[in-house]
Amino acid sequence: LRPRRTTTGPDMKTRKQSAGAGDRLSAHEIYLKAAEIFEAKGFDATSMDDLGRALEVTKAGLYYYIASKEDLLFGIMTYAMDWLDREVIIPARAEADPERRLRLIVCNHGRELLEGPRALAILSDELAALTPKHRRNILDRKRVYFDLVRDTLDELNAAGKLRAVNTTVATFSLFGTLMWLPRWYRPKGRLSPEQVLDEVAAIGLGGLLASTRA
Amino acid sequence: LRPRRTTTGPDMKTRKQSAGAGDRLSAHEIYLKAAEIFEAKGFDATSMDDLGRALEVTKAGLYYYIASKEDLLFGIMTYAMDWLDREVIIPARAEADPERRLRLIVCNHGRELLEGPRALAILSDELAALTPKHRRNILDRKRVYFDLVRDTLDELNAAGKLRAVNTTVATFSLFGTLMWLPRWYRPKGRLSPEQVLDEVAAIGLGGLLASTRA
Repeated sequence: LRPRRTTTGPDMKTRKQSAGAGDRLSAHEIYLKAAEIFEAKGFDATSMDDLGRALEVTKAGLYYYIASKEDLLFGIMTYAMDWLDREVIIPARAEADPERRLRLIVCNHGRELLEGPRALAILSDELAALTPKHRRNILDRKRVYFDLVRDTLDELNAAGKLRAVNTTVATFSLFGTLMWLPRWYRPKGRLSPEQVLDEVAAIGLGGLLASTRA
Repeated sequence: LRPRRTTTGPDMKTRKQSAGAGDRLSAHEIYLKAAEIFEAKGFDATSMDDLGRALEVTKAGLYYYIASKEDLLFGIMTYAMDWLDREVIIPARAEADPERRLRLIVCNHGRELLEGPRALAILSDELAALTPKHRRNILDRKRVYFDLVRDTLDELNAAGKLRAVNTTVATFSLFGTLMWLPRWYRPKGRLSPEQVLDEVAAIGLGGLLASTRA
């Protein structure tokens, strides 16, 4: 007995039962493998057949999991934003001290960018391939994150703890340093994730904080 | 009389005469328009027909200009690296003072990333689509640039002018801040390119230099 797909949204947690191939695929496995093939081939050039091969399910099995390629991409991005909410944004909001909050954001997000799946981190740029409604949803969530960081810098500024910098440019500069990590870092190279995180925190915060402690 | 294509390399400067459509396309126009369509559609999903439409030449005219899609991508990247040599690397090598050299690199490269064509800047990530030989060529040229920046930081360190930072991570952090610029900056927004450049130099160098003058 093979259950039919009953939802059209990106949440696959409710459809984890057996698919065409008789396998159980977790949402994490699906999103990760799909992100890898999208990243390697490009979203537009990836066919449903490519996805089926990567996930080792038949095409029918694939349609059991996903409604369309775009739906899958939105699912991946939603999954990544859910992670960001849980591991970065919520803990950061619970931290009252703005300097510690900034450091927590850099370290929690930076650690995932260094140690987590590279394809998931890089794919978050593929916004153009989303439907307008889905794109708006992801952009709104990214905006919440941007505002959290900029508000933290504004708070530091009000407390006289920031260099004379524009907090919008400063926020994007910090994001640039963070988002570049999966593009250059090689886990088997000479630098450990801890070393890189320490350096990124020192360099990133050192460029912003008025004190030289960072 | 239509000249036949006589070279197979990416240098189009020698084939600027009239093409199929009777138009004259400069290498700059070809690379820019091709970069835009590659960036919008993705390299793999872009067909020769798409390129012909974007460049407003017939398919036969297109083959007059380029040997293949990959050849064109390599041409675009070579063109971008030539620009970097001419406008950033050569002037930087002529600057003896390491602090001024670093500032020159950030400002000259940063200005192009803010004011130059966005697609050209972003496409430089598409290394995976190149043939191994072409990829090696571009990677070698990127490495020369990386080494120039890291050597400059090492020189500052030897002169006691650098914070206690790992110069490899510091170089990638600076590149991250720079390479993120075309991904967020909107020319018609509130911030002028000059404002952003000033801020990026202050933040980027402030995170690295031991003095607080930056």
